[in-house]
Amino acid sequence: MLSEFDLIKQFFQRSRPGTAALGIGDDCALLAPAPGMQMAISSDMLVENRHFFAGADARMLGHKCLAVNLSDLAAMGARPVAFTLALALPAAEPAWLGEFAAGLFALADLHDCELIGGDTTKGPLTICITIFGELAPGHALRRAAAVAGDDLWISGTLGDARLALAGYRKEVALDDAAQLLAGARMHTPSPRVALGLALAGARLAHAAIDISDGLVGDLGHILAASRVGATFDVDALPAGPALAAQPQALRRRFCAAGGDDYELCFSAAPAQREAILAAGLASGAAVTRVGTIDAAPGLRLVDARGQALDLPLAGFDHFASA
Amino acid sequence: MLSEFDLIKQFFQRSRPGTAALGIGDDCALLAPAPGMQMAISSDMLVENRHFFAGADARMLGHKCLAVNLSDLAAMGARPVAFTLALALPAAEPAWLGEFAAGLFALADLHDCELIGGDTTKGPLTICITIFGELAPGHALRRAAAVAGDDLWISGTLGDARLALAGYRKEVALDDAAQLLAGARMHTPSPRVALGLALAGARLAHAAIDISDGLVGDLGHILAASRVGATFDVDALPAGPALAAQPQALRRRFCAAGGDDYELCFSAAPAQREAILAAGLASGAAVTRVGTIDAAPGLRLVDARGQALDLPLAGFDHFASA
Repeated sequence: MLSEFDLIKQFFQRSRPGTAALGIGDDCALLAPAPGMQMAISSDMLVENRHFFAGADARMLGHKCLAVNLSDLAAMGARPVAFTLALALPAAEPAWLGEFAAGLFALADLHDCELIGGDTTKGPLTICITIFGELAPGHALRRAAAVAGDDLWISGTLGDARLALAGYRKEVALDDAAQLLAGARMHTPSPRVALGLALAGARLAHAAIDISDGLVGDLGHILAASRVGATFDVDALPAGPALAAQPQALRRRFCAAGGDDYELCFSAAPAQREAILAAGLASGAAVTRVGTIDAAPGLRLVDARGQALDLPLAGFDHFASA
Repeated sequence: MLSEFDLIKQFFQRSRPGTAALGIGDDCALLAPAPGMQMAISSDMLVENRHFFAGADARMLGHKCLAVNLSDLAAMGARPVAFTLALALPAAEPAWLGEFAAGLFALADLHDCELIGGDTTKGPLTICITIFGELAPGHALRRAAAVAGDDLWISGTLGDARLALAGYRKEVALDDAAQLLAGARMHTPSPRVALGLALAGARLAHAAIDISDGLVGDLGHILAASRVGATFDVDALPAGPALAAQPQALRRRFCAAGGDDYELCFSAAPAQREAILAAGLASGAAVTRVGTIDAAPGLRLVDARGQALDLPLAGFDHFASA
């Protein structure tokens, strides 16, 4: 039987040098941002049967639980530095832990993000990561910073994660290729860290949020915090490659309110259009202009001809029964 | 039905100004240590039926989950600044949440520690707090800093939390008064923040750790990290007021390896004895000298006459079945 300390040593303690003054193995880790910089901090908890299926692939789970936290840093425009991992496990299974750690560290290394501490305990499978990024004061992409007249932008594509879920639930009949394509977006999302850094570093964008609970719901947070409204063209939303082959009604619904997308929704002055397209190209995340921020409160969804749409949409609520 | 956002707004978002540049309500919180200072970071996860009983008093639980994290800062000698809270709940019950928040914030306010963010989700009751403290570079009370010849010290008293558990489990027959007295140490521990600050700030101590898994096990981490040994007098260990009335064998066992104590075990040069006693008085936490750090590896337990003891003790392992 693997003890708690053996488990940490074997799977999570690594010798690679990092930014932290002190990593795993004491009562606390020690970390300092570069002189004059702020730390951006976010914490997410993933629970079995709620955020992922029982029996989920451990390597993909290791990727995803860090990806959702990196996505929060991206939405703030912060550079990833380090993270802590608290893990409740029904049992300490070496094979599972090896795969989980492999998925986690592959993504962590890609972003130079060091595991500096945490906790392990027995319990229902639950993963809580707290992540630390660095950014210059005044550069954060705040939810409250949208301005009437701003363009509204989306990174990457939307809706494939929700389509994958619909496929698993048999709400939609998907062939194997489509299920696999959509499933990759659900299980191994790519946080838009480089794009967020470019938008914040060069002050290209005003407000930003990551789309984890669905575009309509998450954009609603920007509108409420900024006391503005928005109009967007539902048919301009970039559907994921699997969702693009589905009927219009499903495309509209899953793009506008699918959830689990981990793309960025951001607002920026029209003068920045060229620079934003260039930042998208440079960071490997396509960006699409989908609407505008309005002075009038409320969210207006229109179709490609500019006609108002009344779609039955709702953001994801973690205490709703769905 | 309370939504996730209403829940955060109603119970966890407060208007009192804090240290953080940005608190709850965006993708990340923003925090910067004072110029030249480091951040000490620790994360603990508490799981129902593992770290606390199902149906545990919500107010005491709110206190305890923050106390165990504050205790990690104390063991490092860091000043509390802020924390994040990730909470999985079977249901959003306003009465429970109100009590939990009351216990949490009462202790947080006592230590000027601001809630700056987190996550809430549906799931088996699980509480993960990540805490942030501040300290000057080089002042941290590291596990690796014990030196042969150091005195070994303990703050407060030991064993009452373990006695309370034994009472609940009917391993020991306790009258109501003793159960209540011991239970208070189990449910509402007092993290030794002021003592830790005094020990680190004036460089009085070398190594320190908080005793959460039992003295023998936790001291073992100092010995391993510092490559030293230790001798301590089991009968010199300060038993809690309820445990003090119990037979010697139980006193020895619960003091030396009870767990859940959240007291500090620290090493310091003999020249600091007067200063350490004064720091204990000033911080309201009695300190007791219980042994010495030795060059010879291993842990030697002796009785009041200096005779070697061979007690069957083990530290708490979160993956053991106990």
